[in-house]
Amino acid sequence: MPDTPTLAPAAAPGPVAYARFLDLIADKLAATEEVFRVNLGSDVPFIAEAGSYIAGSGGKRMRPALLLLASRLLGHDSDEEVTYAAVVELIHTATLIHDDIIDHAAIRRGQTTLNNLWGNSLTVLLGDWLYSRAMQMALSHGNLEVVRALCDATLRMTEGELLALRRLGAADVDADEYFAIIERKTACLFAASCALPALIDPYRPEAETALRRYGRQLGICFQLVDDLLDFTASEREVGKPVLSDLKEGKLTLPLILALPRVDAAARRKVEMVLEDRAFERVAPDEILALVRAQGTLGEVEELAERSAVEAREALEAFPHSPAREALEAAPAFVLHRRS
Amino acid sequence: MPDTPTLAPAAAPGPVAYARFLDLIADKLAATEEVFRVNLGSDVPFIAEAGSYIAGSGGKRMRPALLLLASRLLGHDSDEEVTYAAVVELIHTATLIHDDIIDHAAIRRGQTTLNNLWGNSLTVLLGDWLYSRAMQMALSHGNLEVVRALCDATLRMTEGELLALRRLGAADVDADEYFAIIERKTACLFAASCALPALIDPYRPEAETALRRYGRQLGICFQLVDDLLDFTASEREVGKPVLSDLKEGKLTLPLILALPRVDAAARRKVEMVLEDRAFERVAPDEILALVRAQGTLGEVEELAERSAVEAREALEAFPHSPAREALEAAPAFVLHRRS
Repeated sequence: MPDTPTLAPAAAPGPVAYARFLDLIADKLAATEEVFRVNLGSDVPFIAEAGSYIAGSGGKRMRPALLLLASRLLGHDSDEEVTYAAVVELIHTATLIHDDIIDHAAIRRGQTTLNNLWGNSLTVLLGDWLYSRAMQMALSHGNLEVVRALCDATLRMTEGELLALRRLGAADVDADEYFAIIERKTACLFAASCALPALIDPYRPEAETALRRYGRQLGICFQLVDDLLDFTASEREVGKPVLSDLKEGKLTLPLILALPRVDAAARRKVEMVLEDRAFERVAPDEILALVRAQGTLGEVEELAERSAVEAREALEAFPHSPAREALEAAPAFVLHRRS
Repeated sequence: MPDTPTLAPAAAPGPVAYARFLDLIADKLAATEEVFRVNLGSDVPFIAEAGSYIAGSGGKRMRPALLLLASRLLGHDSDEEVTYAAVVELIHTATLIHDDIIDHAAIRRGQTTLNNLWGNSLTVLLGDWLYSRAMQMALSHGNLEVVRALCDATLRMTEGELLALRRLGAADVDADEYFAIIERKTACLFAASCALPALIDPYRPEAETALRRYGRQLGICFQLVDDLLDFTASEREVGKPVLSDLKEGKLTLPLILALPRVDAAARRKVEMVLEDRAFERVAPDEILALVRAQGTLGEVEELAERSAVEAREALEAFPHSPAREALEAAPAFVLHRRS
């Protein structure tokens, strides 16, 4: 994978000129990649090795891009926001690494996972190391409120993962539970990434509230789309097999909304995949037909669109500027992405 | 296990009146237990459940006791040091929890481990949660230097674990490598625990240096004794079987020093246990006979005593006081403990 951010225009799908993000913050994103890469270095040989594997593994760099755009929106232009952009990506990466252990995932973003490469034990410790390194970096600018916000988001994310894990394999997860989980698991770090620049001196409480609202809605939108893509995108597009979530025991919103409306035989099919953690007794197409018949993919898309609208509305608190325009374009990019 | 700290006089072995620790900081240790317990609470039911299991699982509370004594030495008397005492115990606990996953440990301190009780996935996340909670608590007093010191110690600890893990099962670990590992794995958090009170306002750099030196040497002493106990203590005393380290693939100093001096047949015996991760082809008594014949248990004890002396010497920087006396007594307690 290239060293440059993978937010390149060539990758931008759909109607949105996602290049707007890059025009405005291309230099900062490149600087973030460098800070990210340097801080994955260590005098412990294994960490250095794993670090360069991680740095080269790509990723959309959504959270850094949002943090940098929010910084631009507020008129910041220093190394501080670049550090924080690398920090949120590090925290996100640490979460993914521990998640992959839990999911027994062998592939992520089309690449072999660390747990598959080096085993669970080293990977547990590597995730711990990344969390500590992220906090260490966050501390380097002496801004306590920033570190607090990152720490709170990390704690909530872990809680989200724990809530989800406790319900793994369950066929009776409801929509409220689903939203409580994605709120913590995804929306919290999006919200923190967007709001962090408001904590950079001078503290701007109103901007913090608006950007937090923006990030939260965008995070919810992002997760809804992520869960939709598991039904609709091809393996080549998302870098993992279709219906991976269900195969891992995770019930997501399209099925959560569909299940109460179908008969016992159809419900039983979903339960069998959850039980087997495999498509043995049921074919993927049967599950796809089930959600398509109920129209819940469309319903979830509508919910994602509603979140996108609410995210954009939160930006009305700010005067018009290229940064605001770029942030306004982000929800549409999130909605129309194919990977 | 009782809710009260297990540093009770009844548990104090050998010639040292370890009760001195308690006389001086009994109230603070009790307050620490309460802060520890409260902060393991959560509105996520599983965390609350696991939290009370952890809070009730005992532990020597060495690091909190040292931190509180060093605080007393410097004349502090507030909630701040109590928070930090709970924080270092939380960090220590998180490390143990992730270690137990890596070691596939079923028993710790005579109790079923969390991974054995709830599986690896939940336990990975629970450890993550504890680390974040610890940092969140550390941030609550607004002292950046304290958080930095804790973060650095946590990072180094993880590096120590990684270094150790990469050499698991290896029969050619040398003494330098062993000390590089225990320096990070154990001595760093002891050093941070002892030096932290010097970072409480007003910052006292000379006290920090002396207390860091004290903590580091005490940590090395502690780990050397820990590794000795694996050879000499009974299962009842340490809460896990004798020669557990070797069975888990870990070569510790008594064997590291003995191996270059024995013949190929004896070396082969050690290798077989490391390969099998079990006493199948070799009996524990054969390994014990090997180290006894080489006298390396005595040599390691001498090294531990030397660290104890150096720890005490570091305290000469401080005027005589009951707190200094208690800290001076700690190395002897560490040396003579049986569990």
